[in-house]
This record gives sequence, C-alpha cells and structure tokens, in this order.
Amino acid sequence: MVVKKVKVFVTLKESVLDPQGKAVEAALHQLGFSGVKDVRIGKYIEFVVADGADGERDIRAMCEKLLANTVIEDYRYEVEEVVSL
Amino acid sequence: MVVKKVKVFVTLKESVLDPQGKAVEAALHQLGFSGVKDVRIGKYIEFVVADGADGERDIRAMCEKLLANTVIEDYRYEVEEVVSL
Repeated sequence: MVVKKVKVFVTLKESVLDPQGKAVEAALHQLGFSGVKDVRIGKYIEFVVADGADGERDIRAMCEKLLANTVIEDYRYEVEEVVSL
Repeated sequence: MVVKKVKVFVTLKESVLDPQGKAVEAALHQLGFSGVKDVRIGKYIEFVVADGADGERDIRAMCEKLLANTVIEDYRYEVEEVVSL
C-alpha cells in the first residue's frame, strides 16, 4: 500500500516578534556562540496519510484549520510517497 | 558577506511517546481527516551564523548543548550559504 508521509513546517511570519527565538539567541551567545543571529523557532509536524485523490487539498485544510494559526504563522509542507507493507 | 542559514529539525526519538502528537491526531480525526496517523510534533529552528571554519562543528555543539535534549530527541540540520549585503 502506498501512503504519503507529510512534513509540515510552521513558522512565525517575518513581521511577528519571536520572544522564544530571542531567548534562545541570548542563551547561545552566553554559551559562546557569538556569531548566531536571527533565531526563529517554529514547529515541525510529521504525519502519515492514506493515499487519496484529495491529498494536497486535505493537507492545506488541516494546516489552515488546526496546525497553523494563519494570522501570525506561515506554513509549508513536503509530501513524500512511501510504500508501506 | 557570505553567511550560513541553518535549519535545525528536532524530533522525539521513535521510541518516545508523543502525547502532543496524539492530541493533534485526535483533533484531526474529529475534524474529519480520518486517514491521518502517526502524528509526531517536533521543533524547527532557523538561524543565521557568520561563515567560519568551524561552522559544522559549532552547529552540532549548539544542538547538543542547547537546542535538542539528546536523551529523548534526535536532531538533523541543513546549512545553506546565503550572500548577505
């Protein structure tokens, strides 16, 4: 059976402040990694869906309804076909 | 100036339970996306580093010391060279 392995990346929009990223940046500087900047933290969601005709449309719907808050977040996804036994 | 754009993906190890993923899976089922399974939630971290000789070694050190908890999490990263003006 062929299934789809989906990887969704949810990131804050460029214009939105990322305090978690700022905190991680400060911590990295404190650890001596002074060259690091522009740290942004997002979510990485992996799941498997049974292969179907509406695959891509369904994935977009899942992202917009649940996985990403499209007011402040952007998302992108990658789909990989996997043969599952 | 050439800088490196680094993307780090932190995921729970296969053997570790992911209750957040289970909750998202249940929510997706409730929204009617019944074909979804094996939802796993991880972190996606982006940052920029000034290009240096020890780039890769530094990135691994950052992941092991701060970004990932290697007891329960795996990480992988991608490095992209970007010309910044």
